[in-house]
Amino acid sequence: MSALPASSARAAAAAVSADVVIVGAGLAGLTAARDLVAAGRSVIVLEARERPGGRVYGLPLGDGTTSEGGAEFIGPTQDRIAALTKDMGVETFATYNTGKNVYYRNGKRSLYATDGILGSVPPDWGVVDLQLALVSLGNMAKEIPVGEPWKAPKAEEWDSQTFYTWSRSNSLSSGARFLMDAFISSTLSVRSRDVSLLYVLNYIASAGNESNPGNVDRLINTKNGAQETRFVGGSEQVPIRLAAKLGDRVRYNAPVRSIVTSGNGVTVTADGVTVAAKRVIVAMSPAVAGQIDFTPTLPASRLQLMQRYPMGSIAKFVAVYDTPFWRADGLTGQSVADSGAIDATFDNSPADGSRGILMGFINQTNIRRLDAASPEQVKAAGMESFVKLFGDKAKNPVRTAMQRWDNETWSGGGPTGIAPPGVLTDFGAALRTPCGLVHWAGTETSGFWTGYMDGAVRSGERVAKEVAAVL
Amino acid sequence: MSALPASSARAAAAAVSADVVIVGAGLAGLTAARDLVAAGRSVIVLEARERPGGRVYGLPLGDGTTSEGGAEFIGPTQDRIAALTKDMGVETFATYNTGKNVYYRNGKRSLYATDGILGSVPPDWGVVDLQLALVSLGNMAKEIPVGEPWKAPKAEEWDSQTFYTWSRSNSLSSGARFLMDAFISSTLSVRSRDVSLLYVLNYIASAGNESNPGNVDRLINTKNGAQETRFVGGSEQVPIRLAAKLGDRVRYNAPVRSIVTSGNGVTVTADGVTVAAKRVIVAMSPAVAGQIDFTPTLPASRLQLMQRYPMGSIAKFVAVYDTPFWRADGLTGQSVADSGAIDATFDNSPADGSRGILMGFINQTNIRRLDAASPEQVKAAGMESFVKLFGDKAKNPVRTAMQRWDNETWSGGGPTGIAPPGVLTDFGAALRTPCGLVHWAGTETSGFWTGYMDGAVRSGERVAKEVAAVL
Repeated sequence: MSALPASSARAAAAAVSADVVIVGAGLAGLTAARDLVAAGRSVIVLEARERPGGRVYGLPLGDGTTSEGGAEFIGPTQDRIAALTKDMGVETFATYNTGKNVYYRNGKRSLYATDGILGSVPPDWGVVDLQLALVSLGNMAKEIPVGEPWKAPKAEEWDSQTFYTWSRSNSLSSGARFLMDAFISSTLSVRSRDVSLLYVLNYIASAGNESNPGNVDRLINTKNGAQETRFVGGSEQVPIRLAAKLGDRVRYNAPVRSIVTSGNGVTVTADGVTVAAKRVIVAMSPAVAGQIDFTPTLPASRLQLMQRYPMGSIAKFVAVYDTPFWRADGLTGQSVADSGAIDATFDNSPADGSRGILMGFINQTNIRRLDAASPEQVKAAGMESFVKLFGDKAKNPVRTAMQRWDNETWSGGGPTGIAPPGVLTDFGAALRTPCGLVHWAGTETSGFWTGYMDGAVRSGERVAKEVAAVL
Repeated sequence: MSALPASSARAAAAAVSADVVIVGAGLAGLTAARDLVAAGRSVIVLEARERPGGRVYGLPLGDGTTSEGGAEFIGPTQDRIAALTKDMGVETFATYNTGKNVYYRNGKRSLYATDGILGSVPPDWGVVDLQLALVSLGNMAKEIPVGEPWKAPKAEEWDSQTFYTWSRSNSLSSGARFLMDAFISSTLSVRSRDVSLLYVLNYIASAGNESNPGNVDRLINTKNGAQETRFVGGSEQVPIRLAAKLGDRVRYNAPVRSIVTSGNGVTVTADGVTVAAKRVIVAMSPAVAGQIDFTPTLPASRLQLMQRYPMGSIAKFVAVYDTPFWRADGLTGQSVADSGAIDATFDNSPADGSRGILMGFINQTNIRRLDAASPEQVKAAGMESFVKLFGDKAKNPVRTAMQRWDNETWSGGGPTGIAPPGVLTDFGAALRTPCGLVHWAGTETSGFWTGYMDGAVRSGERVAKEVAAVL
């Protein structure tokens, strides 16, 4: 198509220049900025929101405090977010994990002691069945070249079916099937038919680092797993402090509308500011990056990737209590449920336990059922779940709050982008492949810990090296 | 999120008002405009391109003439495009269909006489196998409520698997499997794993009208099927003449950037013009509509639909000859191939046969393989296919041309939007459900003949009634 007429907004906006312009002040974009600044490059970061952090967010509780509304945990092998956390001087503490978890299914509430999917299956609910399926998944995941699953020997076969199809062919008991669906729902906030088997295997393989291959347990566990540790003051302390160090290099309320490549440079136009630079880093999920108008048009493989890598649907509902009363009842605060608004819960209380906060994930179809609900109805639905799982003591919270991501303009969902069948094998390489002067970052582009804060940081470090090498 | 700061472009642009503003001057948008004008309403149509027609397009051949670069055929039960064609005074003629078709597989070229998938299968290539599978598909399609496949009794089961999974479970011979993949590739220009079984069943059910249920044959055949008839002067004559009747109500080079709903009205901002109206009709595919910035944010089900309904990847390559030489060789010009750049061909010669034009579809993965190819390499690949299929006489065309849709900013692919597993059941209702003052049209929203010109016209007629009823 012909070039668009320059809008008068571009003429009226402030015009600045830098070596590199970065779109998005989430962990990926901020990390890339940090590394490029350290390498002596000038950088401008354009952020649509009025805050840094992207999907890392401190949800205001209405009393001047916050609780994690987005990504919140860190676990073993997540070395890069760990290093950044240390650099920022943010302390961490163990996720509360003493006592039993609640399992609610078919109208019955029961308790279990062990971490993970296996721990949640009483012997009569298909534990052998599930165990065989998980062993099988683990073995297949070992054949995945991390971050390049399309190169797996059986990539075509694994990418031609949904995880639902595989899970039904490889488990017979309803208990095992429920828990495999719960595994997908709780890690990705989609249904098991929304993703290909290959995508799930890559997600498992990605739950590790260069010396420790990924596995299912590390993905889903609290102890020794991705939910092991939390941040004092909330995970948002990390991007907030990193952004503060970058100072006025970060421009807020500046959603990027267009990226034009011309000759040896790029012109990035946001509301209120236009940046001329040598390179641009788009540090966003593919789906949200697809809302930017690129000139010239991107290669078809990238354009189609941005149409085919949707976000999960997720929300977090929190209730604040004077004390974490469930601890005294011998409960961790963790649960999984097959009904009600809330699918799974965690103890989100602050490090000092000075008050109790229950956090419930409202996943995939559950959150969309609330599309037309009033705030009062949403609160009632969330509280009904908490009472069902933790008893009458949950009935009277001091306050509640909710963060919903699937109708959030600048994230478009969460926790991460997912790949339906066929997408990784046909379009996966476009996740990271630069398009001329346009480079890509974001947790979706990471090999290890894709979908997590660690993957975001890794992607920022990778793209900074990639860009520094060609400047 | 908070409202965006008004850009100075909005202040500088021309400001107009109308009862209804329509985004997109394809057949859907133009039809809606025609009906609303007939109902006495004032209308403005905003079109990103410098021409009307959307995916209906006359590809310039370089000698002052055109050949169909997009949608081109019309067939039985496509009553609404037929009526519009008649109203516009555009004549039609039979697609050239005399002689045999070419079937190229495993390095061997053979000829066959009958229309459709069954005709293309010599008896030793699994015809019984394929026939059983097609009967099964046809029977399942009868259970689909057209345009609301999510209401089918087995919707969950059919939407949880890819068409690939179903086709492999229901055919054993490689010949039958190849032809089922070719069925998907030639109708949708995606791979059989990209779409759910439910989506394919709905597409089959949609190939009919109120008194004639859809079926596979009508979808894939030339005689008595969707490829039966062509337009004198090219299909683009229909939108061109319709747009001419609407006159300066249609604004070109006006890509819409934002739609703001406020109180009882909408403000639609395009490059160079801002329209205030009572209602807005977005007559675009979901994927391309997703590039517009909506304030307030749309409901999550619609936002996620726009992330999850990607376009197929398609291109048309044409070669012009002094005569349609294949006719003298007893060939229709139609073919299907398992290798080479071109997947299927048609005789695209003009109605009077005054010259010969071969048209080849370059589908799904084949077109992306040419992402980095020069125009010369693309031409060489296309010509290699034509010579393989139609012999040495194809070697020296007068000229060639290609229309590629998957890197086309304002269509994002073609022929239509497709649904991976899970999308229709969880998000399908959002295809047509209005969001406040925002209404939706486009062939993807149609019950009958979704994906076709007829579906586009039907959607325009439906949305015009929908909007007229609430004005």
